[in-house]
Amino acid sequence: MARVSQEHLDARRRQILDGAAVCFARNGFHATSMQDVLKAADLSAGAVYRYFSGKEELIAAIAAEVLETVRDTLEKSARENPPPTPDVLVPRALAQMRELRPATLETGEWLFPRLMIQVWTESTRSPALTAVLAEGYAMIREAWGGMARSYQDAGLLPEDADVDAMARAMIALVQGFAAQMALFGDIPPQALADGTRALMATRRAADGA
Amino acid sequence: MARVSQEHLDARRRQILDGAAVCFARNGFHATSMQDVLKAADLSAGAVYRYFSGKEELIAAIAAEVLETVRDTLEKSARENPPPTPDVLVPRALAQMRELRPATLETGEWLFPRLMIQVWTESTRSPALTAVLAEGYAMIREAWGGMARSYQDAGLLPEDADVDAMARAMIALVQGFAAQMALFGDIPPQALADGTRALMATRRAADGA
Repeated sequence: MARVSQEHLDARRRQILDGAAVCFARNGFHATSMQDVLKAADLSAGAVYRYFSGKEELIAAIAAEVLETVRDTLEKSARENPPPTPDVLVPRALAQMRELRPATLETGEWLFPRLMIQVWTESTRSPALTAVLAEGYAMIREAWGGMARSYQDAGLLPEDADVDAMARAMIALVQGFAAQMALFGDIPPQALADGTRALMATRRAADGA
Repeated sequence: MARVSQEHLDARRRQILDGAAVCFARNGFHATSMQDVLKAADLSAGAVYRYFSGKEELIAAIAAEVLETVRDTLEKSARENPPPTPDVLVPRALAQMRELRPATLETGEWLFPRLMIQVWTESTRSPALTAVLAEGYAMIREAWGGMARSYQDAGLLPEDADVDAMARAMIALVQGFAAQMALFGDIPPQALADGTRALMATRRAADGA
């Protein structure tokens, strides 16, 4: 058997994941067959099954990759001073996902949001995928919580704020905006920033206007 | 043919929608057959098809009902003075969906969040469902925008804030929190409130700490 370089293996794996991501985003997880993935990746069955046992493994690998991208974005952002506030960070996290390959469907539609809701729906039926998402979500929640603590350190957030609850709220913003994009089309980055900033600018009546 | 009261027709319709909602949330839209819905609703095929032509019509009716519930919540809230701010309103919108029937699956799990992501995923494949969601979303976005304007009227939000972008951000919070519940289980209302409040309490570095 011929020796193949790690680089070659990685490129092949990438090719398979990209093909699968396009199929899932375009036609949905259930309507996609492994045959469709082989065709989209332009590979033989042997080549694909050497890497992934089936659709469940493919969608889990795709989800894990997206979650790692978000974590990387946050780790880099946490080193900035002053720390980027949610009105900067939420659009940034979404922009980062735009740079994931493959970026768009052949219609020009951004692929990631549609893929994301496919992953969610499938996870309610696949314990393996739920495990991947739960692990990734815990990691992301910790990272967003770290950002919230950095706001406190910089004097931008009251000391008594619940950083874990805030982490969940920031994640919810990213998830919800992505869901809106999947359902109704792209949202300009400026609207993401302005909407988040307006939330941050809202005073509670009890605090005095 | 026997005359039947409107009340009877409504109750029958309710019975069908509840059965369908449980099936979709439990097993997913694709894995549910009309036969499953008939069984869950304890009705004959003739009785069900008199109301709904198929699964697509069922899921569209379920989605329309949820969207109307959210709008009702906002219309009532808009009449309060001072207007309830997002830290009150986001948990309230989610709590309202808890009161929709049927509330829970037989496992005790809250039904609505799982149903919501099923609706989203299916809408990417069904133009009819997309149309229902787009109409409902426009209505909801207008209602949340009205809330944002009431914050401005009460002096709780700067006049130059983008109320439509803020509407989208508040909707994103509700959608994202619901997605987290679908994936990882319930979130205490207090965490929804505290997370939203922490977002509202975050200052931008440029505004001075």
